[in-house]
Amino acid sequence: MSEYVFESLEKTLETYIPDAELKEIKRILYGKELRKIILPQTALDAALERDFDLQGYAFDAAPEQLRGPRVVRVGLIQNKIILPTDAPVLDQITALHKRVGEIVEVAAICGVNIVCLQEAWTMPFAFCTRERVPWTEFAESAEDGFTTHFCQELAKKYNMVVVSPILERDEIHGGTLWNTAVVVSNTGTVLGKSRKNHIPRVGDFNESTYYMEGNTGHRVFQTQFGKIAVNICYGRHHPLNWLMYSMHGAEIIFNPSATVGALSEPMWSIEARNAAIANHCFTCAINRVGMEYFKNEFTSGDGKKAHHDFGHFYGSSYVAAPDGSRSPGLSRIKDGLLVAELDLNLNQQIADKWNFKMTGRYDLYAEELTKAVQHAFRPNIVKE
Amino acid sequence: MSEYVFESLEKTLETYIPDAELKEIKRILYGKELRKIILPQTALDAALERDFDLQGYAFDAAPEQLRGPRVVRVGLIQNKIILPTDAPVLDQITALHKRVGEIVEVAAICGVNIVCLQEAWTMPFAFCTRERVPWTEFAESAEDGFTTHFCQELAKKYNMVVVSPILERDEIHGGTLWNTAVVVSNTGTVLGKSRKNHIPRVGDFNESTYYMEGNTGHRVFQTQFGKIAVNICYGRHHPLNWLMYSMHGAEIIFNPSATVGALSEPMWSIEARNAAIANHCFTCAINRVGMEYFKNEFTSGDGKKAHHDFGHFYGSSYVAAPDGSRSPGLSRIKDGLLVAELDLNLNQQIADKWNFKMTGRYDLYAEELTKAVQHAFRPNIVKE
Repeated sequence: MSEYVFESLEKTLETYIPDAELKEIKRILYGKELRKIILPQTALDAALERDFDLQGYAFDAAPEQLRGPRVVRVGLIQNKIILPTDAPVLDQITALHKRVGEIVEVAAICGVNIVCLQEAWTMPFAFCTRERVPWTEFAESAEDGFTTHFCQELAKKYNMVVVSPILERDEIHGGTLWNTAVVVSNTGTVLGKSRKNHIPRVGDFNESTYYMEGNTGHRVFQTQFGKIAVNICYGRHHPLNWLMYSMHGAEIIFNPSATVGALSEPMWSIEARNAAIANHCFTCAINRVGMEYFKNEFTSGDGKKAHHDFGHFYGSSYVAAPDGSRSPGLSRIKDGLLVAELDLNLNQQIADKWNFKMTGRYDLYAEELTKAVQHAFRPNIVKE
Repeated sequence: MSEYVFESLEKTLETYIPDAELKEIKRILYGKELRKIILPQTALDAALERDFDLQGYAFDAAPEQLRGPRVVRVGLIQNKIILPTDAPVLDQITALHKRVGEIVEVAAICGVNIVCLQEAWTMPFAFCTRERVPWTEFAESAEDGFTTHFCQELAKKYNMVVVSPILERDEIHGGTLWNTAVVVSNTGTVLGKSRKNHIPRVGDFNESTYYMEGNTGHRVFQTQFGKIAVNICYGRHHPLNWLMYSMHGAEIIFNPSATVGALSEPMWSIEARNAAIANHCFTCAINRVGMEYFKNEFTSGDGKKAHHDFGHFYGSSYVAAPDGSRSPGLSRIKDGLLVAELDLNLNQQIADKWNFKMTGRYDLYAEELTKAVQHAFRPNIVKE
């Protein structure tokens, strides 16, 4: 396990690099220096006692004459599973409810208005196994399931919007499975759901065996604290997916994910941040943490021997802003809560500065893309 | 000038961070470790004598049964202007020809097959001034100009494709100005030209005063060494621009740029790299270097006093690969030549692994984007 001792890029940089150069390094790697939020001592104590990483940063905007600041606190939660993957299904779910409930309580102490949990947060990421049993038993109704009820209680108790990504079973449409984020309003009402638009076929991400590409489009949820959207996991590799959430007005796009180090870690810091820059909005990238072992061995289509684990989920959840700045990442190895205070006025301020929506020539691309998807499409290649 | 002493992120990391952790840092920041190319001693000597940064890296691909490796060496050149900006126009151009000719000679010694120069490489980036005189005198015919002839000579002499981004005057269409890359084949023939698709209106980038959005679409040039495209400067902020070059078959997309530290440096490492990942291709980001002073003072629309310079062009040119890996950047403060050996087979290998073109749902986006650009478009916003 020694390879997982490396806890975070930021800690290593801060340990070794002298201050003057560290300032330049941080500017180039992270953009402008963020204000650290002074979090309540009770929250810091609880995080220490409950053994999770707690960090808080603010993304400020300039004052305006006609609008007051539009400040919202978001909370990103990353966590390991609790029980072994062969424990009874309901015990596994209940243990995760308990753990996440503890972290959400700290988020509430920190004044978080919108919390987002990781992808398929009530279960191990078992799709690597290609087994149906017992994993499909983790699927629940988005509108009326055990987990949604749990989130509704949290939402009401803490006056907090809860984004809850689960494995959904849609009984109304043939009992189909979906990878779905349920958005629960701070009033406790289910505001709606948003399904994963792009399904991976890479490495052990055998999700296309379980559910299809989402059919909920790029809807945006108007909450009391701002307009939010949820781009689940693999959707972050698709710039058009981010774009369309932004076109529909998203001010904050959450990206609850489950991804492992050997596959994607060098891309992790790039994609959600590029989306924040390209779309003049905030993005929140959340990844689960730790190792998950499965009872039955499985192969990975890579010529290697059958094995029992998916690899290391590296956490490193972060928030990126439209001005190209980003927060440090949470721990690579521990559960964590990242609190970020966002002044949503920054979106329009940066949009007015850079104008990508104005210079984007979307009418041209609508035409070009319409042509490019035709069978008769011929690339424009200039030859000698 | 003390703020410009910071030469490169990579040098600082290597100076201070112990080996074991440096390995992890590099993996997370740069992806897989690249093989360094052993460059000829004559090239290293010449770079030292001519005072420019010279680095070489290889992006290898796995061996295949039915295709041999498709190895191409690209050269990215970044440079300062030579003469003061009030020197006679022809002297300025000639001095730049001489300097770049010296660097291209070293590229030839290093076995470079395709060289790309920086945006508007024959002139200072004078668009900040909004003056017409003498800057429009730097404009030349793409097909038959002084600079194109110079590049044709280089191309023939070294059997090298030369991508030459200039300020173009198009006499056939009303003597209009364009920001254009001329692609000269290794045979010396002008293969064609590609115009800048997205024009900035940010900071001192007053280019929209001089030329319009390009009308050459997303053409790709079939060279003897691979299919290439040129996404000039501001186009790198627009993911759809990268996508369409890729849709038309580009294996390498060059991004000749001119950008300054205060504005864009934290975004620089993100955008071209995200494009390489999202489109399963190589991208080559090139930025000019140094300070450029102008005789007449100008203001920047930022409430600050009139001044004579544009800020520091921070170089840092780099190559990114479809697997998320990237080369270190060239110097922030010196002229430079980055030699990168690319096995183009990597593009298809990574595409077959990740499948973004397959999972991209482009038909859906063609429809959605067509709707989104209509005046009657109404965002899909879910409210309580």
